[in-house]
Amino acid sequence: MAPSGDRVREVLEKARAEGRTALTAPEGKKICDAYGITTPGEGLATTADEAVAIAGDVGLPVVMKIVSPDILHKTEAGGVIVGLGTPEEVRSGFDRIMAAAGAYDPDAAIDGVQVQRMLGDGHEVIIGAVTDPTFGKVVAFGLGGVLVEVLKDVTFRLAPLSTGEALGMLDDIKAAEVLRGVRGAEGVDRDALAGMIERVGALVADFPEISEVDLNPVFAGASGATAADVRILLDPHPVRPVERLPREQILASMNRIFKPRSVAVIGASAETGKIGNSVMRNLIDGGYRGQVFPINPKASDIMGLPAYAGIAEVPYDVDVAVFAIPAKFVAAALEEAGRKGVAGAIMIPSGFAETGDHEGQAEIVEIARRHGVRLLGPNIYGYYYTPENLCATFCTPYDVKGSVALTSQSGGIGMAILGFSRTTKMGVSAIVGVGNKADIDEDDLLTFFEQDENTRCVAMHMEDLKDGRGFVEAAKRVSREKPVIVLKAGRTAMGARAAGSHTGALAGDDKVYDDILRQAGVVRAPGLNDMLEYARSLPLMPTPRGENVVIITGAGGSGVLLSDACVDNGLSLMEIPQDLDEAFRAYIPPFGAAGNPIDITGGEPPSTYANTVRLGLSDPRIHALVLGYWHTIVTPPMVFAELIARVVAEERAKGNDKPVVASLAGDTEVEQACEYLFDHGVVAYPYTTEKPVAVLGAKYRWARAAGLLGG
Amino acid sequence: MAPSGDRVREVLEKARAEGRTALTAPEGKKICDAYGITTPGEGLATTADEAVAIAGDVGLPVVMKIVSPDILHKTEAGGVIVGLGTPEEVRSGFDRIMAAAGAYDPDAAIDGVQVQRMLGDGHEVIIGAVTDPTFGKVVAFGLGGVLVEVLKDVTFRLAPLSTGEALGMLDDIKAAEVLRGVRGAEGVDRDALAGMIERVGALVADFPEISEVDLNPVFAGASGATAADVRILLDPHPVRPVERLPREQILASMNRIFKPRSVAVIGASAETGKIGNSVMRNLIDGGYRGQVFPINPKASDIMGLPAYAGIAEVPYDVDVAVFAIPAKFVAAALEEAGRKGVAGAIMIPSGFAETGDHEGQAEIVEIARRHGVRLLGPNIYGYYYTPENLCATFCTPYDVKGSVALTSQSGGIGMAILGFSRTTKMGVSAIVGVGNKADIDEDDLLTFFEQDENTRCVAMHMEDLKDGRGFVEAAKRVSREKPVIVLKAGRTAMGARAAGSHTGALAGDDKVYDDILRQAGVVRAPGLNDMLEYARSLPLMPTPRGENVVIITGAGGSGVLLSDACVDNGLSLMEIPQDLDEAFRAYIPPFGAAGNPIDITGGEPPSTYANTVRLGLSDPRIHALVLGYWHTIVTPPMVFAELIARVVAEERAKGNDKPVVASLAGDTEVEQACEYLFDHGVVAYPYTTEKPVAVLGAKYRWARAAGLLGG
Repeated sequence: MAPSGDRVREVLEKARAEGRTALTAPEGKKICDAYGITTPGEGLATTADEAVAIAGDVGLPVVMKIVSPDILHKTEAGGVIVGLGTPEEVRSGFDRIMAAAGAYDPDAAIDGVQVQRMLGDGHEVIIGAVTDPTFGKVVAFGLGGVLVEVLKDVTFRLAPLSTGEALGMLDDIKAAEVLRGVRGAEGVDRDALAGMIERVGALVADFPEISEVDLNPVFAGASGATAADVRILLDPHPVRPVERLPREQILASMNRIFKPRSVAVIGASAETGKIGNSVMRNLIDGGYRGQVFPINPKASDIMGLPAYAGIAEVPYDVDVAVFAIPAKFVAAALEEAGRKGVAGAIMIPSGFAETGDHEGQAEIVEIARRHGVRLLGPNIYGYYYTPENLCATFCTPYDVKGSVALTSQSGGIGMAILGFSRTTKMGVSAIVGVGNKADIDEDDLLTFFEQDENTRCVAMHMEDLKDGRGFVEAAKRVSREKPVIVLKAGRTAMGARAAGSHTGALAGDDKVYDDILRQAGVVRAPGLNDMLEYARSLPLMPTPRGENVVIITGAGGSGVLLSDACVDNGLSLMEIPQDLDEAFRAYIPPFGAAGNPIDITGGEPPSTYANTVRLGLSDPRIHALVLGYWHTIVTPPMVFAELIARVVAEERAKGNDKPVVASLAGDTEVEQACEYLFDHGVVAYPYTTEKPVAVLGAKYRWARAAGLLGG
Repeated sequence: MAPSGDRVREVLEKARAEGRTALTAPEGKKICDAYGITTPGEGLATTADEAVAIAGDVGLPVVMKIVSPDILHKTEAGGVIVGLGTPEEVRSGFDRIMAAAGAYDPDAAIDGVQVQRMLGDGHEVIIGAVTDPTFGKVVAFGLGGVLVEVLKDVTFRLAPLSTGEALGMLDDIKAAEVLRGVRGAEGVDRDALAGMIERVGALVADFPEISEVDLNPVFAGASGATAADVRILLDPHPVRPVERLPREQILASMNRIFKPRSVAVIGASAETGKIGNSVMRNLIDGGYRGQVFPINPKASDIMGLPAYAGIAEVPYDVDVAVFAIPAKFVAAALEEAGRKGVAGAIMIPSGFAETGDHEGQAEIVEIARRHGVRLLGPNIYGYYYTPENLCATFCTPYDVKGSVALTSQSGGIGMAILGFSRTTKMGVSAIVGVGNKADIDEDDLLTFFEQDENTRCVAMHMEDLKDGRGFVEAAKRVSREKPVIVLKAGRTAMGARAAGSHTGALAGDDKVYDDILRQAGVVRAPGLNDMLEYARSLPLMPTPRGENVVIITGAGGSGVLLSDACVDNGLSLMEIPQDLDEAFRAYIPPFGAAGNPIDITGGEPPSTYANTVRLGLSDPRIHALVLGYWHTIVTPPMVFAELIARVVAEERAKGNDKPVVASLAGDTEVEQACEYLFDHGVVAYPYTTEKPVAVLGAKYRWARAAGLLGG
């Protein structure tokens, strides 16, 4: 807290004592003064001499206003004069105001005349803070006027924030160029502006009861920035931060849940069609090698395994209990599982908060917490962890091992993940349904995946976050090493938010999510299919070491579309140096085009693809390749696929490991060629120039955020 | 031409005579006056009384400036005063200027004092015109200042344009709301602004030698609009409009080309691997029932058909000659084909303009034109027209008949079209390569497809347009009846354009294309795969009759993502009236959610899908359905697919024909279900919530532009 926090505390206490949720302008100014937020200089003059002296202090021009408890309509009373530019004007202005006020109401008590520095020079910006339901205190910055009001050109960050983050906000609006000075206008004092943003962030972080701050407009000039108007709102009952478990404790539970020595199935059944039967079958058919204990009071054995009447009867330790019983029986069974000491309760049953039974859900959370049991769900399909051959779900087994972990908040999306994975043979480490997120949420899962040697990439579908800050912290940490892909649903359902301030009205859920997830290093997927394709492709690509992307194409038409896609995805087409250009030219026909895209032309034999791709991989100035293939008789699809896979592998063996993505245009044989390429670590798609470039773009977004490009 | 065109002609002649390509400010003003474009009122005063009178005429406040051939630095001489607001100020201002000028240079010849209306009130906008290489004269409109300079918020239309089109431009910028008045500011005089846009359009259309016009800024107030600064550039050698053939003539050729009674293959070959062999095989294997004449001087028969040494020897009429010979032999053979009277020469050979041989290409165009032969290509794969079983190409036959015609400028993209069509069993009427477009271009093809009873939708990949205006005219006409989908490649390759004016600098190729294609009613596809999916899906969907879209979903998670996609695609989620809400509720569990999306919940039997979808189809207030399916044991994918196909068919039979698109989330069986649904006229995609909504959005964009929604 700032040393001058006491002065803020005093103002807030007074407002609280008076039951107010909005501060007055002088109170706002006091708080700004305490936090070093510049407001226009001002003073109260009782004589013309004093007025001139104050004007000298605050700087000309000034605005002068009558101060009188008896004069409410100052302008009507002739009590306001703007734009006084010289000491003489100030002097005569003082006299005119006093005379007008006297004429307006001879009995009015006059405190004096307020002399305030008149602003208006420089750029008009808005700096604010709101309390977001997901992320808590959030700072906003935008250009004032129509840009922010009509075009909503505004950016958000978690409060408090560093000077670097505040400076970053200045560059993160669409009209950022304006702040650097355009049309002959001077640029703003970036340090002053960033400093003000930082101070607002510190203020709301220090005082949780400050729910909204609105500095609007702030006049940002070539030297300094001044908040012309200050509005501060209070919430007497600020939301308490979410309680978090220590990392060690989370990991201890998660490791037992994902790598259990034993699994009990509560409600195991021999009857086909029952969920308790599907779960049993998937555990066994999936190849899980730990112990499986069917729990069913009415059976002596199920699928060849001895059944127990209750989990208490199991004569061994149990790590995980999968619940496959109706909601109404869950509480009692969970109580028993808790006493047994299970680490995780996998709550497949529905019929809790999602159908309106919040009490029922609160009850099982209470039971779980009391026993130190972590609860996944309820209302989920279960979870997969392929390194342990663990399919604790009522769906079907999945066995293609790989390095991406996927989670979904919705069962439908979980099923789409499963189907997509199966059809594309996507290598997966885990698929996890989080459902109602009564307990285990994305933070817990990220904490596990972070240290999970089998997971190198995480993709999460989510509709909300229980603890936005917890997620940001975890994602920031994880994404430094492993890409974290997020599909945030409900993007466009801007919550109808009761807006008490300008900033509040701007803080539509999605923009806040978007800015803050990006700051956390998360790669946001625009849609479901994008999330799935990123998840499939990102782990296959090595991390690029720089921004130089080169397109090599057999079809000029694909080259143009691939260039479009590169620009759309924020990729930089390398300007090919002359020596490299000549080296490429040596391999392509004279009417082909070097430059970038490099158009090797359509009728070329396999060697032309091989030579140019090898050159692209081996030259250290090139960092990533985008290939455009055109189906011809001379170089048929599978010939292309095999040669690219071979060249990529050979160059990789030499240490030339770069992302290579390919777009294949041709008859249906290109589908098989793409499959072959994927199997050999080259991302390749048929009938699209957009997808291969989009996944490369996603990889780059991650690598940049993780600081791996040195940029 | 405006009656006052003579005055413009006079100014232009003078500039031409003096070899100038830029007009002076007074010349610009003269032209504006002639076309009714308001510029600030002004006059020359020689006495203080005159100054007051002029100020009275032009309106206060005014700017006053000394006019003297001897005083170049007016401000230094004390010869400029701004912001004179009263007649008294004007009078004393005149005297001050005259005194200052006299003091500055007692010998200076003084013409008088210019009194000009001072602008600055109202909104600053820019109105301009440029000569686009593709579309010719184009008008631009945007908000002035930062919005247009930094954010490039500008819109374009072909010149000349109607008042309605000009008014539309005011709504077509992102900051359109500003013009309606925000933050307490008054809105602009829309009629005055639109009128000025219209006049600029008329001016550049009337005088092709005016290459650029820049009215920047224009001050648009609550009443009237005034161009404060006028800049007009001339091009002494304006581009001549492209020559066009009469529609009847185009159609006569195109009908013979697409529905030929006979086809000659010049360079036919019996040798596998040769292009002339592939073409022969495809014609025969494809099932073409007209006559096929192999032309080859070295063979007596090819594939069982009598061969001819030259086309001249063929004893029958020949409609189409397919060229499968090297470029160097083309001219002579074309000469012969021309004499034979073929309607179309299908120029497969490459080695013309695309390899730099522009002369060679010009030569064959000349030969073709001389004989009245239309030339497709060169440098193409050929063309397909399925209603005639015609595969005049060296690729492979394609036989899935349907109603979409596709064209591509690039061979690679053509191959992608073929592969995609085959794998999705897309029903196609034609696939046409246009290659170098030496003669036949998109306009010709549109003219044919417009009246082709076998084509109901057209999709075109293009990199440029030979005759932008011709295309716009054709597309405008065709798209009223049949969707025209365009993939314009090179979107982001903003040509480095030598910008002589502000407007010129703004006219990046793609924004001009985008605005003008949209005005032509074209549905633009953002990428290759989008074009292909639109082409596949649009013909399957009936035209919606209104904007009310309803989502019915088994998976809540899909519902949220489908809503996101609807907003992204400009679709309106219907607000469900209470009676309809109750009707839906009657079919779904109590914890399901009515409203929109209608969440029927996951565990429901087929009947719940059937009932709700039937209700959605039969209620006339609903215009389109988006379905979200969730794979469950209770309603497996094929059960869902069959029931939806049945309900849709039954309701269609009752006249309830509405677009229905579906997103299927589930295990791999959903792929088969999607295929089944497509086969039964329901657009359905697995593992994506974006694609089904994107194609519905494309259908809506077309229907709106075609005026079919009555909106």
